[in-house]
Amino acid sequence: MVEKRAIYTASLKLWISLAVCLLSVAALAQDPLPSWNDGSAKRAILTFVRVTTDPSSPNFVPPGERFATFDQDGTTWVEQPIYTEIVFAFNRVVELAPQHPEWKTTQPFATVLSGDKSAMAKFSMKDLESLLVATHTGMTVEQFNTLVKGWISKAEDPRWHRHYTELIYQPMLEVMQYLKANGYRVYIVTGGGQGFVRTYADQVYKIPPEQIIGSAYETEYTYNEQGKGILMRPPKLLLNDNYSGKAEDIYLFTGRHPNAAFGNSTGDRQMLEYTQAGGGAPLMMLVLHDDAQREYAYGPAQGLPDSKVGTFTQALYDEATAKGWIVISMKKDWTRIFAWEK
Amino acid sequence: MVEKRAIYTASLKLWISLAVCLLSVAALAQDPLPSWNDGSAKRAILTFVRVTTDPSSPNFVPPGERFATFDQDGTTWVEQPIYTEIVFAFNRVVELAPQHPEWKTTQPFATVLSGDKSAMAKFSMKDLESLLVATHTGMTVEQFNTLVKGWISKAEDPRWHRHYTELIYQPMLEVMQYLKANGYRVYIVTGGGQGFVRTYADQVYKIPPEQIIGSAYETEYTYNEQGKGILMRPPKLLLNDNYSGKAEDIYLFTGRHPNAAFGNSTGDRQMLEYTQAGGGAPLMMLVLHDDAQREYAYGPAQGLPDSKVGTFTQALYDEATAKGWIVISMKKDWTRIFAWEK
Repeated sequence: MVEKRAIYTASLKLWISLAVCLLSVAALAQDPLPSWNDGSAKRAILTFVRVTTDPSSPNFVPPGERFATFDQDGTTWVEQPIYTEIVFAFNRVVELAPQHPEWKTTQPFATVLSGDKSAMAKFSMKDLESLLVATHTGMTVEQFNTLVKGWISKAEDPRWHRHYTELIYQPMLEVMQYLKANGYRVYIVTGGGQGFVRTYADQVYKIPPEQIIGSAYETEYTYNEQGKGILMRPPKLLLNDNYSGKAEDIYLFTGRHPNAAFGNSTGDRQMLEYTQAGGGAPLMMLVLHDDAQREYAYGPAQGLPDSKVGTFTQALYDEATAKGWIVISMKKDWTRIFAWEK
Repeated sequence: MVEKRAIYTASLKLWISLAVCLLSVAALAQDPLPSWNDGSAKRAILTFVRVTTDPSSPNFVPPGERFATFDQDGTTWVEQPIYTEIVFAFNRVVELAPQHPEWKTTQPFATVLSGDKSAMAKFSMKDLESLLVATHTGMTVEQFNTLVKGWISKAEDPRWHRHYTELIYQPMLEVMQYLKANGYRVYIVTGGGQGFVRTYADQVYKIPPEQIIGSAYETEYTYNEQGKGILMRPPKLLLNDNYSGKAEDIYLFTGRHPNAAFGNSTGDRQMLEYTQAGGGAPLMMLVLHDDAQREYAYGPAQGLPDSKVGTFTQALYDEATAKGWIVISMKKDWTRIFAWEK
């Protein structure tokens, strides 16, 4: 009887071991990038992770030094017809208008209040800057965070009628997750506001605030009425995290070259160049928006329609080709764009 | 025979389990802060870690949010008779002098070249700034790193004739190690140059470059003759990480209040206030240099000699007392200062 039970136990243990083993093999075989079609873009990501994490590879990167940067607007979420943060600014101008009667006759505020979308699409950088200053500064950092959190939990985009945080590209989330699972620290490096993105990045991308690099207003340390230390947001830009600013701010925040960088526009060019300048076997990728049906189509690279938002010039496309950067075709490389698609 | 072996195996397993268990208990009982005398300072550190890492504590901090900041000069290493980075600048001026014949008759360079230490001790902030610009800018970030690494691997301090990186306070290294072992991410937040400290922090403190926040010159992204992206150091200060700058830059880099902060001078006041403003059960500590025999004695708090370097005013001491910040007496709280002491 005792012997029979022992044989039974041993046999059970064997089956459990076998099951665990099979599950492990299944996990290994599971595709880490299920929203990607099998093509050169997907293969480049898989190869990059293999050659930088295999200790026997000449391009092995020690775990503490693995580091990847993602632009946000147009790279990890939708940026058309206009950047989400600008929509927040427009909405905030409307909300604040009763306290600013002068805005009815002052540009660019009057245009925002008129609701004329085609006029708003023509705003210059200077127009946008004055709207950002009016809606992003003159308050504590906590007050700003509360405003953004409240807005983004409710606001919906005009095309899909979804929260903006639902307009994240599922294929890029998979890349982030895959890199993290392989010991990479993942940063957002955005021309958008660092404070804005930090309010939702932890929830949406699982990226903590210290790994968000972005354009930033100065803060000013002062005291509230109770003598408690607070940080105000004065109307003075400290970091413009676009173009050269991306390479400069990556260095400021991390002191390193990224091993991999992902962008989609001319504003990401220097970040990709700086990544490549770090040597090793780096990965540089650019998202090309060539899918008007499922998302948007704009360039003007490769004959796509021109766009003020997220411009991808032919010169950038040619630099990518010359330097071995991978251009991701949304149309061909992604089996789906959003998590909620069928 | 089979049965005997089975009994032997079972018995061996029991002994191994017992040994592992005893080792665990021994590790638990081991003092994480052996260079600290048992007093209120040491107990405050132990209590802080206990109440912020025990999941049943009302002040529990989730692992991803545990975050501590350390000033460097006078807090984690010696800052007297003058900051190490300033010694580097003085040495570098002497090295560069042949290329700058005009320095023989230009202040503050002429004073540095004269070697008159008492005159150099009287340099104003403006003098020091022009010496820093002349020795820290006008080169690529890599060139600067190479200079600092070369210098710091050889230079010796005038009192102990040791490398500056051997003048780290062993008790503070133990606090850093103890915090890290309890899931804390440890940052240096220094008024010194971020680029300077990053060159040795990984080796000396086991703190990676992305966790070094400091005063910083702007960088400028440009191209070398081969068309490769490089970062130059132009003579333009971007961040002054002293006083209010510490609170502001901590927010810029991390978006968080620290849970614990360690300083030693009036330049750290706002960092400690900002830490306390984050709520919970934060730990704020200030090192008081009251041990002329083993290190230096300066304040002018508590009747200690006044000092231009690392000033600890009576007002700061009084603020600490009023707000429950812990003042560490080097003389009473530390059983040894340096790792190489007997």
